[in-house]
Amino acid sequence: NTKLKSTTLRMSMTQTPYWASLHADIEAHLKQTITIKEPLVVFEPMHHLIFTAPKTTVPALCLATCELVGGQRHQAISAASALLLMEAATYTHEHLPLTDRPRPMINHVYGPNMELLTGDGIVPFGFELLARSDGGENSERILKVMVEISRAVGSGGGVIDAQYGKILYSGSDGEEKCHVEEIRHVVEKYEGRLHSCGAVCGGVLGGGCEEEIERLRKFGYYVGIIQGMIKWGFKEDHKEVVEARNLAIQELKFFKDKEVDAIKTFLNI
Amino acid sequence: NTKLKSTTLRMSMTQTPYWASLHADIEAHLKQTITIKEPLVVFEPMHHLIFTAPKTTVPALCLATCELVGGQRHQAISAASALLLMEAATYTHEHLPLTDRPRPMINHVYGPNMELLTGDGIVPFGFELLARSDGGENSERILKVMVEISRAVGSGGGVIDAQYGKILYSGSDGEEKCHVEEIRHVVEKYEGRLHSCGAVCGGVLGGGCEEEIERLRKFGYYVGIIQGMIKWGFKEDHKEVVEARNLAIQELKFFKDKEVDAIKTFLNI
Repeated sequence: NTKLKSTTLRMSMTQTPYWASLHADIEAHLKQTITIKEPLVVFEPMHHLIFTAPKTTVPALCLATCELVGGQRHQAISAASALLLMEAATYTHEHLPLTDRPRPMINHVYGPNMELLTGDGIVPFGFELLARSDGGENSERILKVMVEISRAVGSGGGVIDAQYGKILYSGSDGEEKCHVEEIRHVVEKYEGRLHSCGAVCGGVLGGGCEEEIERLRKFGYYVGIIQGMIKWGFKEDHKEVVEARNLAIQELKFFKDKEVDAIKTFLNI
Repeated sequence: NTKLKSTTLRMSMTQTPYWASLHADIEAHLKQTITIKEPLVVFEPMHHLIFTAPKTTVPALCLATCELVGGQRHQAISAASALLLMEAATYTHEHLPLTDRPRPMINHVYGPNMELLTGDGIVPFGFELLARSDGGENSERILKVMVEISRAVGSGGGVIDAQYGKILYSGSDGEEKCHVEEIRHVVEKYEGRLHSCGAVCGGVLGGGCEEEIERLRKFGYYVGIIQGMIKWGFKEDHKEVVEARNLAIQELKFFKDKEVDAIKTFLNI
């Protein structure tokens, strides 16, 4: 019944060329979209908080599943960017110094007020990016993806639930120390749900069929479990991590006529 | 160069039967949509914060302009509900006790942590409502409305900018006391922008033509200026209020073949 501590994401998979290439495309898209313009006082912190939030595997997974089902990266680039924005907003709000939680131990470039507002500004911007990405033919797919993202980052089994769980389980010293079953609960709702969402969005936008999309939903979920467990300090040979990887590989078998080697790198840790 | 203080919205127009009927429809829709379900710990505060946030004229205006252009209320009910949710989330976060702002003088039923999370959960839920409201024929209109709402509640001339202005202008005692020109700036970006957005959304969803929609954009803006100035304690015979009302009536003249008496009640104060 030992307690574990959350660490910064150890993500050796970010050293794989495939992830790096996907992530570079997303950042390039965002840098082009979010210029530092007037009012500087609003856009400068927005820019800063978006590009300094820890990198995750969620946005890249969205492009990867789009490619897996035969789509082109650009079809999912707005959704991937929106996901990166949602994660940056979540990260920013998670580290806000509130009066009823201990001062977070990250370096704050801006004051809490500014960080609160910036996080609040980033989320609608993500939805705007997505809503504007439609050339007029794809609007139903975009709306589908919006429902997926809203649910994953909102309440009802998504990030908000996970954050609530984290608060509940955290020690009164504010350290994120949890029991294994608590971690599993948080990881399922957080990394599991977000990766699952990312995988689905890419599948939808790449034109995947319903069965493909449901397989990707599960595949993404297992990728998230692996990434999340590793983040909490579990070793790659831990029972739960090994199990998640096996289940993820099972789901990929459905895509046997497709090129799966690239997306398999998301199971590297 | 006197300073004025923001008060709770004095909104005698909420006593008009038209506003009351529109607002009742929106609340009924929301109550049906947001049931208190598991996890209670997430949905109970969400429900509470949504239904106790101060009522505004924005969501009702969205239904009113939909009717003005010949649409039916139900076509704009999800957008109106989403607008109400965005306003509730904004109100909740505006009153969060942060370490770098004075303790807000409203009664808090939930702790700051819970209020932060709930606000964060409400916004995606608003977008979800909207994304789900499409029967498959209307997706382009819905995406248009999403762009409008994202911009109004986000950065770049919307609510976030106004909130930043409020912080900037507020006294170090945290009282919202501003000079007239500062108030004008905040009201333009806040109430002006939101009412303008509400009016446009209703026009788009009701099937208004482009010229109608642009007239409604201006009409809504003036309605917002009036409502905002009154909220800050300006009298109804104040020069700026009188001017905004005249300009609003000018815009309505474009709709001379339509029934404008109902929507004119939004100029009552």
